[in-house]
Amino acid sequence: MQKTSETKVLRDPVHGYIHVDLQVVWDCINAREMQRLRRIHQLGGDFQVYHTAEHSRFSHSLGVYEIVRRMVYEIDSIAESLSDYGKAVVMLAGLLHDIGHGPFSHAFEDISPLKHEEYTVKIILEDSEIHRILANCDPELPNDVASIIRYENPKECLNQIVSGQLDADRMDYLLRDAYFTGTSYGKFDLERILRTIRLKDERIVVKQSGIHSVEDYIMARYHMYWQVYLHPVARSYEALLSIMFQRMKDVAKKDPDVLREVSMFHPFLFKKEPDIEDLYQMDEPAAFYGFSRLLYCGDEILCDIAYRILNRKLFAYKTIESEKDYTAICDKVAAMGYDPTYYVYRDAVSQRPYSPYSIQDNPHNILVLQEDGSIKELSEASEIVKALTRADLKEEHKIYYPIEHLANEDVRIKTKTHKDYKESTIWQLSE
Amino acid sequence: MQKTSETKVLRDPVHGYIHVDLQVVWDCINAREMQRLRRIHQLGGDFQVYHTAEHSRFSHSLGVYEIVRRMVYEIDSIAESLSDYGKAVVMLAGLLHDIGHGPFSHAFEDISPLKHEEYTVKIILEDSEIHRILANCDPELPNDVASIIRYENPKECLNQIVSGQLDADRMDYLLRDAYFTGTSYGKFDLERILRTIRLKDERIVVKQSGIHSVEDYIMARYHMYWQVYLHPVARSYEALLSIMFQRMKDVAKKDPDVLREVSMFHPFLFKKEPDIEDLYQMDEPAAFYGFSRLLYCGDEILCDIAYRILNRKLFAYKTIESEKDYTAICDKVAAMGYDPTYYVYRDAVSQRPYSPYSIQDNPHNILVLQEDGSIKELSEASEIVKALTRADLKEEHKIYYPIEHLANEDVRIKTKTHKDYKESTIWQLSE
Amino acid sequence: MQKTSETKVLRDPVHGYIHVDLQVVWDCINAREMQRLRRIHQLGGDFQVYHTAEHSRFSHSLGVYEIVRRMVYEIDSIAESLSDYGKAVVMLAGLLHDIGHGPFSHAFEDISPLKHEEYTVKIILEDSEIHRILANCDPELPNDVASIIRYENPKECLNQIVSGQLDADRMDYLLRDAYFTGTSYGKFDLERILRTIRLKDERIVVKQSGIHSVEDYIMARYHMYWQVYLHPVARSYEALLSIMFQRMKDVAKKDPDVLREVSMFHPFLFKKEPDIEDLYQMDEPAAFYGFSRLLYCGDEILCDIAYRILNRKLFAYKTIESEKDYTAICDKVAAMGYDPTYYVYRDAVSQRPYSPYSIQDNPHNILVLQEDGSIKELSEASEIVKALTRADLKEEHKIYYPIEHLANEDVRIKTKTHKDYKESTIWQLSE
Amino acid sequence: MQKTSETKVLRDPVHGYIHVDLQVVWDCINAREMQRLRRIHQLGGDFQVYHTAEHSRFSHSLGVYEIVRRMVYEIDSIAESLSDYGKAVVMLAGLLHDIGHGPFSHAFEDISPLKHEEYTVKIILEDSEIHRILANCDPELPNDVASIIRYENPKECLNQIVSGQLDADRMDYLLRDAYFTGTSYGKFDLERILRTIRLKDERIVVKQSGIHSVEDYIMARYHMYWQVYLHPVARSYEALLSIMFQRMKDVAKKDPDVLREVSMFHPFLFKKEPDIEDLYQMDEPAAFYGFSRLLYCGDEILCDIAYRILNRKLFAYKTIESEKDYTAICDKVAAMGYDPTYYVYRDAVSQRPYSPYSIQDNPHNILVLQEDGSIKELSEASEIVKALTRADLKEEHKIYYPIEHLANEDVRIKTKTHKDYKESTIWQLSE
Repeated sequence: MQKTSETKVLRDPVHGYIHVDLQVVWDCINAREMQRLRRIHQLGGDFQVYHTAEHSRFSHSLGVYEIVRRMVYEIDSIAESLSDYGKAVVMLAGLLHDIGHGPFSHAFEDISPLKHEEYTVKIILEDSEIHRILANCDPELPNDVASIIRYENPKECLNQIVSGQLDADRMDYLLRDAYFTGTSYGKFDLERILRTIRLKDERIVVKQSGIHSVEDYIMARYHMYWQVYLHPVARSYEALLSIMFQRMKDVAKKDPDVLREVSMFHPFLFKKEPDIEDLYQMDEPAAFYGFSRLLYCGDEILCDIAYRILNRKLFAYKTIESEKDYTAICDKVAAMGYDPTYYVYRDAVSQRPYSPYSIQDNPHNILVLQEDGSIKELSEASEIVKALTRADLKEEHKIYYPIEHLANEDVRIKTKTHKDYKESTIWQLSE
Repeated sequence: MQKTSETKVLRDPVHGYIHVDLQVVWDCINAREMQRLRRIHQLGGDFQVYHTAEHSRFSHSLGVYEIVRRMVYEIDSIAESLSDYGKAVVMLAGLLHDIGHGPFSHAFEDISPLKHEEYTVKIILEDSEIHRILANCDPELPNDVASIIRYENPKECLNQIVSGQLDADRMDYLLRDAYFTGTSYGKFDLERILRTIRLKDERIVVKQSGIHSVEDYIMARYHMYWQVYLHPVARSYEALLSIMFQRMKDVAKKDPDVLREVSMFHPFLFKKEPDIEDLYQMDEPAAFYGFSRLLYCGDEILCDIAYRILNRKLFAYKTIESEKDYTAICDKVAAMGYDPTYYVYRDAVSQRPYSPYSIQDNPHNILVLQEDGSIKELSEASEIVKALTRADLKEEHKIYYPIEHLANEDVRIKTKTHKDYKESTIWQLSE
Repeated sequence: MQKTSETKVLRDPVHGYIHVDLQVVWDCINAREMQRLRRIHQLGGDFQVYHTAEHSRFSHSLGVYEIVRRMVYEIDSIAESLSDYGKAVVMLAGLLHDIGHGPFSHAFEDISPLKHEEYTVKIILEDSEIHRILANCDPELPNDVASIIRYENPKECLNQIVSGQLDADRMDYLLRDAYFTGTSYGKFDLERILRTIRLKDERIVVKQSGIHSVEDYIMARYHMYWQVYLHPVARSYEALLSIMFQRMKDVAKKDPDVLREVSMFHPFLFKKEPDIEDLYQMDEPAAFYGFSRLLYCGDEILCDIAYRILNRKLFAYKTIESEKDYTAICDKVAAMGYDPTYYVYRDAVSQRPYSPYSIQDNPHNILVLQEDGSIKELSEASEIVKALTRADLKEEHKIYYPIEHLANEDVRIKTKTHKDYKESTIWQLSE
Repeated sequence: MQKTSETKVLRDPVHGYIHVDLQVVWDCINAREMQRLRRIHQLGGDFQVYHTAEHSRFSHSLGVYEIVRRMVYEIDSIAESLSDYGKAVVMLAGLLHDIGHGPFSHAFEDISPLKHEEYTVKIILEDSEIHRILANCDPELPNDVASIIRYENPKECLNQIVSGQLDADRMDYLLRDAYFTGTSYGKFDLERILRTIRLKDERIVVKQSGIHSVEDYIMARYHMYWQVYLHPVARSYEALLSIMFQRMKDVAKKDPDVLREVSMFHPFLFKKEPDIEDLYQMDEPAAFYGFSRLLYCGDEILCDIAYRILNRKLFAYKTIESEKDYTAICDKVAAMGYDPTYYVYRDAVSQRPYSPYSIQDNPHNILVLQEDGSIKELSEASEIVKALTRADLKEEHKIYYPIEHLANEDVRIKTKTHKDYKESTIWQLSE
């Protein structure tokens, strides 16, 4: 593989520096599809709770690449097992694994016919700047990189490095999201984990002496889920995005002319299979600008939801215990003049610190190398993790809905147009 | 002033927490004009160099508010000198001081008839959600807050707290930009400075015992300028933005139909005085979406510059010593088929760690309270700062320009349309 | 209570600053018994593993004081429940709680007739500089402070603040030990915990909304135990200290003249009840100097163990499964010419993340305030903690012993005197 | 050079990990003379101001080693210029450079006939465990390591790496002392500096592009001097140590029997040239224990000074402008009944951020590699540093003295014996 003239380093608060010395990696970083990731937030709605969580998928992708790079160069058993080409393939897979993401993380997939992983593979294999860079370097490279994204590379450990349960992707996002939210929950001892990872029988394992750092990582993950990723205020924002996309789909069928000004959404509303160039253009600026156009589209629901998204007038939320609770809220929301189809949003979340996959040899399991050379699945090697996998964690059911009238407050006259919104005095917040 | 039901706290990596217990502050934070700042980067082009510098003016504004809050509550001499109303006024001025910013920091002002400070004042005084919140709380509040933004409040120290040379604005942005770039240069000892600030004869002063932390802050500022704010790669991106806006202005006069698809820019190109609602809609998503439209506008220069902005195909740069160097580059650029009016960009930067203002009593000077109660201007109180103000700092003149042909590389066939760009093989980077 | 002329602040890396504004606190900090704690390591043998774990009980004591201070001033329900005097009492108890510690944490108690808690109470109540400062401030103060140390204050919450399961002592030492070892394991979100602690029915509780930070704290504690406090290399050093003190006791009975040069240990070897002045003089410099004297005392075992302690020639360790393993090692050690009574050291350690005390209302339990106002014990409020309390955590049995001959290495000629030691070529390390 | 069986890593908060893979380095770390450095504070009296500055010369020595290791392996031009043996020599010199230090940094040298550098060389060259380890590895090693300590190695760059003006020693202590004091002043961008250091014509230079990080380092050094190393409270403690050693020397001549109990000091008081074993035994525990014995020695001054050292009853200090100020204080101190020979201590300190040595080619100067390949001395390459070297920095003259009577306070009856001290009510502090 061709080297860059000198090692490029990019300062990064999480890893100190990102190091690049392969020309193909450097060219991919600077390709248009990669640069687009600067325009997509890493954490969909979390910046609504943690105001500094404004980092992009671009910086996360660099971080994943850096962890993969360290794994394939610094862990002797892995380094020795891989050729220079093999190392490049897995580093590129780490760098490119999120390249197919639409705006707002997962909410966008409600209207997208393809999942983000599918777009990632298409961008790598079809005619894109990324594809040309890869193919130009080695004709096999696009297929080999894509096989890791698909978790189908015959060299099992390559798949695991990029997306196992102790993979470069998760390790970067926990540390990065902790840094940018300003919470301490996601911190764990990356150095220690990297020092105890080994390649054993073609599988990624961690030495028993590193078990405490893995337990710490499992708990970091658990806490980040509850404190950040599943935070109800973030979910409330994501609920608005889902409702928005749902309403767009419904309007597209019934009254498409309403959507004439938001051409950026058209491929996903009207085309059978939007292509990679459609996705390229569908970044968050396009979506936000589209929302700002919907304020004037004439559809009351689209206008209201767009206003809420742009100006953080979020839904309130409530934990419900039964179906009855749910119906009661629907009734009240309807009584306020809102259509419960859109204005009552159900969400069920649960999160277990770690779940071993049932099949014994499932490659996603975290494996622990014992001192005698045998291998145990993590929950067998750690009493703490075993206990956690058995914890009786109930699903939480939450309902999100507008509270203005429910709260019986005087100001919130539901208004019909963006102009009215602007002129209504002051919104009261739902928190 | 009405209190919130309980103190609201917002986690912030720079300050730990932002504390809010006045309802009017909370309502302003949640107003649409404030929420819009989430969609404007704090540092124009710096995320092109420091990939994690993706934070917004929203989080900076909260940080400034928090430092003001600490100054007016925790520094006894200030706390005693201000009424509750006075405290609220200056905290609100800190929170709102950046509310009139357009996209991309300063580059946008090339096409904006009004400066951002002027928009800030207009938003506070004219019909906006912010204005209604302030006036609703106290009819005098809009004017009093605006007077600080204008540096015209009769209580001099209030102006200084928000924008002196040792003010809440700079103290927050140095720390914040250091955190989000991942550099250590901007760090200084905020706690120590806050502990040594006093109010003396209605002016903000710092005790002689705090002089070392002020020297450290002055150096932090100096280093951040050279390492971050004036970094040539960031300037290169900002050069593209300036060129873009300049070209738009020129095209608007000669051939306005070219710009028909980018209606978001129209108020700033065609209206005599864009109003605050025009500014509200002109956020970075609107600008980025506009740039993506310009790829298809038919004007070769707009298309090329938009492509460069969106996909980080930056200009190269060179320090020049004489006018001859400049002309030589213009000639080469012209020979490559580029119009030097747009494709050669001059930039002169200089930065002095600290410059006392010539007039003895200039309120912007940093003042140091001596043990005998007298006051000295900083460069008189610190031999180090005195030396720095005398340093012989030359202006740096740099030229930014496309390098493809200059570098005599084979790939760079200048293409006319966005489609061509896409299909041309691979861009080579200018670094 | 008399205030200091101005708030004193002591810079502290864990808390930012320690704030002191009561004269009695300031005087206690500067009393000779408090200053002595600068000469006692916070972590007995951990600096043998983590070379930077060299911090003292003095800085920990200031940290505990600071957390108590924040609890009694910043948590409204506690602040309102306590008079100024009550606040001072509990802050002083936090500051002074470790004042009775001998050298090397717990190992020294092998020869000390009194436990460190007993000495702490004696120093507060008997004639000491601390006692005079307290009594001078208020005649009741010594007794009131001592009652908290004894966990006997009638105001239950005061006892809990200083030594519950979520107390200022543990919260400081986890954070502090993490900082000074350079590990990340001990970090948890102190700010969040302090924000969710409440006083409810005279007991310290934590709000349900803070449960994740408490879970994180429980795991931090668990990890610090395994990674730091019970680290086998630290235990190996502490084993040497225990053996040393045991041998001294035995020699004191049989052949006291051997110990004539180490007068600093005499009160603890020959007096029935060493007084507080004996303890005052028994700091770590005294002990280390004593060990250096024992190199020449003529007793082969004392000399050898002293040499090992001073020069980090530690015992090796091995996990044993059965009594047979133990006997086998004893035999080998005896065959090497060592006396197994001293040269084979057994250690059984176990650590559970959190154990609720069996009695329902045990004040040491962590209590969680539900949204409906009811209170649950932590392991009932958190499924994660419940799972952890049920984890099947086996005790670990380890044996520590010298390996020179066992390892069959050539160098290790067991030498008789310090002179021989010095002249033997090079020690081989047991790790 | 023989490798260790696997790379040893020691966790370190400043560098992440210390990496050791040469057996000779590992053996030196574990030698008795190196382990002794655990019993000597890195910063003499600074823990009296910054209570957490309790780290030892041992951890600093490891840090210096680690920076040297990174310089010789990670900077290509240096790595290529040195053989494996050369790399080992300079790493060992970094590790061992402080091994000859006595207790309390520099104050002890008042009674020591040899400077610490001389002891360092003697320990390396004479019969010590360190010497045996080095000579055992390679007979030339002791001499080669010693030549660097003496700044006499024919390969100039090796001397510079260990003790130039931008050397591993200073870079480690600034970062380390900043970490352990909890100040931010000493932080600078080590990574960036290491990335811009080069070997050019056998000299260590730094690339022009790294000039800002060097300026930052120069300022860090300057601030650490004023805020930490020369802090008057630390100097006050060091003044007591100097007075103590001076008084001991005087008493040793006139009345040596007074000192019979403090045999640890005898070699330095009565031997012409104390040998390396005398130094080995003279660690801080020995000194502190000695001071605690002097409380009972009968000499009033030794007793008083010992009490002050052990219990932080420091002298006050005052900046003086003239000789008259000095005489006035002497008179007052005499009037209080103190002997001004010991009880008035003068101190003159000055600190310049950076002073280039006058001789053009002085190897201690920091050299900057220009883009054209030429080399400039730092103050010529940086306008900021040039300005700083010209700053008009006055020496500060301070007097340290007891304040009890001067302050006209009622309590401070000067007492004659340690018992009196204990029984006098409460000391008032001099701050």
